[in-house]
Amino acid sequence: MAEEHACFENVAIVGPGLIGASMGMALLDRRTAGHVTGIGRRQSSLDKALQVGAISSATLDIEEGVSEADLIVLATPVGSFAALAPRIAAAAPQGAIISDVASSKAGVIETISGALSDRADLAYVPTHPMAGGEQSGPLAASLDLFEDSICIITRAGTAGDEQVSIVSRMWEGLDARVVTMSPAEHDRTVARISHVPHLAASALVAFLQESDMGVCGKGLVDTTRVASGSPDMWVDICTSNADEIARALSEFTAALEQMQGQIERGEFDDLRITLALAKKQRDRLLELRESAAGGGRQ
Amino acid sequence: MAEEHACFENVAIVGPGLIGASMGMALLDRRTAGHVTGIGRRQSSLDKALQVGAISSATLDIEEGVSEADLIVLATPVGSFAALAPRIAAAAPQGAIISDVASSKAGVIETISGALSDRADLAYVPTHPMAGGEQSGPLAASLDLFEDSICIITRAGTAGDEQVSIVSRMWEGLDARVVTMSPAEHDRTVARISHVPHLAASALVAFLQESDMGVCGKGLVDTTRVASGSPDMWVDICTSNADEIARALSEFTAALEQMQGQIERGEFDDLRITLALAKKQRDRLLELRESAAGGGRQ
Repeated sequence: MAEEHACFENVAIVGPGLIGASMGMALLDRRTAGHVTGIGRRQSSLDKALQVGAISSATLDIEEGVSEADLIVLATPVGSFAALAPRIAAAAPQGAIISDVASSKAGVIETISGALSDRADLAYVPTHPMAGGEQSGPLAASLDLFEDSICIITRAGTAGDEQVSIVSRMWEGLDARVVTMSPAEHDRTVARISHVPHLAASALVAFLQESDMGVCGKGLVDTTRVASGSPDMWVDICTSNADEIARALSEFTAALEQMQGQIERGEFDDLRITLALAKKQRDRLLELRESAAGGGRQ
Repeated sequence: MAEEHACFENVAIVGPGLIGASMGMALLDRRTAGHVTGIGRRQSSLDKALQVGAISSATLDIEEGVSEADLIVLATPVGSFAALAPRIAAAAPQGAIISDVASSKAGVIETISGALSDRADLAYVPTHPMAGGEQSGPLAASLDLFEDSICIITRAGTAGDEQVSIVSRMWEGLDARVVTMSPAEHDRTVARISHVPHLAASALVAFLQESDMGVCGKGLVDTTRVASGSPDMWVDICTSNADEIARALSEFTAALEQMQGQIERGEFDDLRITLALAKKQRDRLLELRESAAGGGRQ
């Protein structure tokens, strides 16, 4: 089993929050990483990551933190990448793999690839582990965050097949299912399957009136769970994937307006067709997910 | 304990599907009803309700089924009420309580109150138990469907305080929290807290493309669960609460369009405020729900 997983001597995680700390925790637990260095801006946050066993050592100095790493993972908000990537480019050891876990890819890849352009020896492998929750920070980290999740790997041009394969096997070792796509395809896809559903949940609670709240069932509490996520993190995501999110939002509101029109005009046979198609899509979604989960367990 | 609950000798459930059969099952289990008569259009469906212990006896003949009932519950689709209510009015025994469990109220109350106008002895108490799931039919019924749920009771004019109180205590006996409001307030409220969230879930899956499906995480599968509900049932609900649903849909799309505009214009500080307000509302929702659940358990 051990040979199937990529093994790293020293993984540097820049920003051990929910995702970064869960990665560190799982990499150490599975001995996929011999040592995990947590790099952060606040000692208090790094102390929490140490406390939960997500990192082996901590530093506030990014140059020092990455200097001996064979894998460097950017797990900070996307907005910080433009400032951090050049420092990583200057300090990373020969032949290291650079990765990030951002929720949007085209702009991120442009920023990081640009910063790494003088370091042909570094292989950049962008990833997007689709896991998380409304909680954030290292104390919310868990060993099984990526279990049964999907990790999207996009090609950035500077990494060879071997390095992509190493990162891919690392994620599979954390029980994620790896899917590969282009950065543009990634951004279009996650806008529809993740970013717009999040904004929809926020809009669903935002338009409630105080008098509605006392009678909300647990269904609504459950379906709007993601609306408790960090506004800063979601502004970061919306900033970095603005075009695709705006486009997907307009498609989503068009679908809602179609329903509204059918209801206002009394076209209930058409509404039945719309709802039956949605049910069919949802059943297909469940089917695909179950077969993927089954395949992953084999 | 027994004295706290309303007790009925014979409850007639017209349409023992998911809600009706779960009611029957729970009423029998708690001995709140001595006998439950299931009334349906298909013997096969009634046989299932008998099989799961949701009803004590079954009949295809509505007049016969209600003839000895002290509580008659309409649990069929709203679209059938105009045909069924006059038959119940003609056959119900002296002094019976009539109730329904429909998801919309103003139109339903007009239909049923109209049919009962010559029977001043009958007390009509409209209810909306906010429970269910994407499954339907008696085989999906469960003993604890109403546990920790909310049941909205609306006043219809023909029932006295005593009968409203009897129905109220019956629902409390099934572990639901009872909330009273006017029919118009009910329809406005549930459009926002239940009907629009359902249509939003349907629209969220409907606008997905086939290529999106393979990478959907369990988050989306969970949040769109309700989109697997019966299209016929939801068309029935949309038909009976069309005005309020259309109004709430337009408010919801306005909230989405506001976000879209903020993203397109790069007004990310405004977006942060929008998302922070949503988070605050969602936290308040959770808080109210928890305090309500705690209060209910005392």
